[in-house]
Amino acid sequence: MTGPDFQTNELIPVIAQNHDDGKVLMLAYMNKAAYEETLQTGTVCYYSRSRQKLWRKGESSGHVQNLKHIYYDCDADAVLVKVEQVGGAACHEGYESCFFREIDPASGAPSIIAQKVFDPEKVYGSQ
Amino acid sequence: MTGPDFQTNELIPVIAQNHDDGKVLMLAYMNKAAYEETLQTGTVCYYSRSRQKLWRKGESSGHVQNLKHIYYDCDADAVLVKVEQVGGAACHEGYESCFFREIDPASGAPSIIAQKVFDPEKVYGSQ
Repeated sequence: MTGPDFQTNELIPVIAQNHDDGKVLMLAYMNKAAYEETLQTGTVCYYSRSRQKLWRKGESSGHVQNLKHIYYDCDADAVLVKVEQVGGAACHEGYESCFFREIDPASGAPSIIAQKVFDPEKVYGSQ
Repeated sequence: MTGPDFQTNELIPVIAQNHDDGKVLMLAYMNKAAYEETLQTGTVCYYSRSRQKLWRKGESSGHVQNLKHIYYDCDADAVLVKVEQVGGAACHEGYESCFFREIDPASGAPSIIAQKVFDPEKVYGSQ
């Protein structure tokens, strides 16, 4: 076994973690082409399931992810990347992490536990 | 939106992160029942895709994950749990983290970058 097994799973989930403080930034997917491009360029490339094409993270916002380390798991069906997140925010909603809502286990209710790093309208324009 | 969207995705990927040092331990999946059991019991329950049933992590090894915090992402299709990992190891191969193989981007070759915390044969018996 020499890396993630894209033969069994065409798409593999990828956890992006901030390399310096360990914050989990987002979860996305790679296919084999995205994985190989990431290794070759040192800039993280995902596969967008909704757009069905390679997704060069940051291509519109400039908020690219520079690859620091890349790992795969015991079953070869998940990947972890440690990255430098340019712009300080991975989430298209302007938060550092996409995981900005915490669930209260007792009630099941969410609450927002982070501050926005940028205003999405200023970065992406009105949508 | 009041939590992960199990209507659109029957199974949602879940990142387990060590609550004290931020290490990413593993990636697994929850269905709605696993998610609800996790909230109710405070002990992490996944759904095993291979066994097609609820997977009470640690039920054979004793290495349960006590829930400290639970989050979901901007698209409501991924979950992050911060846990206390009993026994110090999440991986069935005896490592703290399932992500114990790092890829060298230049060669694509993996190398093991962690030490085993326990001997799987002693915990699970010979297999």
